[in-house]
Amino acid sequence: MSVNAEFSSLEARLAGDRARVDTCLERLFNARLPASSRLEAAMRHGVLGGGKRLRPVLVYAAGRALGAPAEALDAPAAAVELIHAYSLVHDDLPAMDDDDLRRGQPTVHKAFDEATAILAGDALQTLAFEVLAVAEHPRLPALIRTLTMASGRDGMAAGQALDLSSVGNHPDVESLATMHRHKTGALIRAAVRLGALVAVAESDPRLGALDDYAAAIGLAFQIQDDILDVTGDAATLGKASGADAARNKPTYPALLGLDGARAKARALLDEALASLAPLGEQATPLAELARYMIERDH
Amino acid sequence: MSVNAEFSSLEARLAGDRARVDTCLERLFNARLPASSRLEAAMRHGVLGGGKRLRPVLVYAAGRALGAPAEALDAPAAAVELIHAYSLVHDDLPAMDDDDLRRGQPTVHKAFDEATAILAGDALQTLAFEVLAVAEHPRLPALIRTLTMASGRDGMAAGQALDLSSVGNHPDVESLATMHRHKTGALIRAAVRLGALVAVAESDPRLGALDDYAAAIGLAFQIQDDILDVTGDAATLGKASGADAARNKPTYPALLGLDGARAKARALLDEALASLAPLGEQATPLAELARYMIERDH
Repeated sequence: MSVNAEFSSLEARLAGDRARVDTCLERLFNARLPASSRLEAAMRHGVLGGGKRLRPVLVYAAGRALGAPAEALDAPAAAVELIHAYSLVHDDLPAMDDDDLRRGQPTVHKAFDEATAILAGDALQTLAFEVLAVAEHPRLPALIRTLTMASGRDGMAAGQALDLSSVGNHPDVESLATMHRHKTGALIRAAVRLGALVAVAESDPRLGALDDYAAAIGLAFQIQDDILDVTGDAATLGKASGADAARNKPTYPALLGLDGARAKARALLDEALASLAPLGEQATPLAELARYMIERDH
Repeated sequence: MSVNAEFSSLEARLAGDRARVDTCLERLFNARLPASSRLEAAMRHGVLGGGKRLRPVLVYAAGRALGAPAEALDAPAAAVELIHAYSLVHDDLPAMDDDDLRRGQPTVHKAFDEATAILAGDALQTLAFEVLAVAEHPRLPALIRTLTMASGRDGMAAGQALDLSSVGNHPDVESLATMHRHKTGALIRAAVRLGALVAVAESDPRLGALDDYAAAIGLAFQIQDDILDVTGDAATLGKASGADAARNKPTYPALLGLDGARAKARALLDEALASLAPLGEQATPLAELARYMIERDH
């Protein structure tokens, strides 16, 4: 297959998976008489405003690689995106990153108000666990544990706390990696693991290979984010570029230089691809996805 | 049994159940190397600072009434208290109720900072679902659904949104009841249902009787809270009294008068006790608990 054909088949699959999870997410808000229509509207705004849907795409790709049918992957895909969406709503709050724009739209607390944004984030988190529980997968305990450990005090929430305390603190590359491993890496790993757990038991040795893959792409993805903050333009990114430097946030380009950061991302991509070796042919879509994530320009 | 003997046996049971859930909650924070010690400390502050532990007490009482062993009730008891604790941490935030004191102690955002309080609330919610999932109860899907539906957009979070929009709006008794049914009633009902579901399946007809009981005590509890805000003193309450009136918050005493509010609470207590009839003798502790909750002075 030519490079162009491979790319276009990847693009088609990405578009399909995004449409699939978007349909699932929209269904959560249709044909309902909400108790608070303002809260409901704020939740919709927080999760249905577009986005790359990277985590759901990883759920589908990992699940399919191990033989799970797409229908069985819908609930974990929606759940992980709901967790991601809740974290963005809260991270954007004035007490946190104080962002007015997200994906070119007003953030939830700007479109509504702060109290509503706090509650909308809270309720998006709750909805993630509800969606998983309603699906009644036989491995539900493992699915819930995977999502809680990645998103709570051992994962994403801790990462955000570390990030807040790191501003202006000049951490080294090691502390920066620890922060990112929690803040964004944990949920990316959870997405891959959730997809895999729909297909196979926790004892399956392929989970380890997939976890190595996910850990590498998770960090590489973040380094690419830092790089784009320096090199990208606001129109392509959908948010202000140069924001990290303006906030005195520690980044990979600041610590390693732009070339050093690019080399690091490339090494992690190679690591991710090598991790997939034990899975053989079935892992090709995961390999394509890794390249796509790290070579993206927005 | 004399009134005093009944009271003292109830007090002993309450003390035992509170100690039991406190031990479970403390264990969640021991022997751990937290990723962010600041986040961990804020979470501890939010959940281990005392409190009536009313919801865990209801989990134990409802579960025992249907024959569940206490050990099987620990996880749901801890989970429902973690959800309650997260909601208090977020409700106290400046953008919400802006409270400086809770149980006589600085609120989490006063003791730490706003961003940490938001994250601590988030992570306490996540921990609630983790605790349930780790326990691996055979009816885990129903347990999770019970907790999510009571605490998310169809329950507590919606109730808080309704409460925020009601301030200064002069709602009638009907809207006030709707708000409380979501804000506090839903989680009290969930506590009773969680305890029951540990013992019996969702199809068991006794769940309906217990739900009627829980709905009545939930609202009565809130009316008593409103009454105490008027009649109580700050030292007994552990928080400022008269706070509702000062904020122009709608309350039952404001709408029905103090005597009218007391009569309403009494009628709901009678309703709760009548609902327990189909359960016979085994429901005596639940009846005692209802009286205790509604005749309390703090």
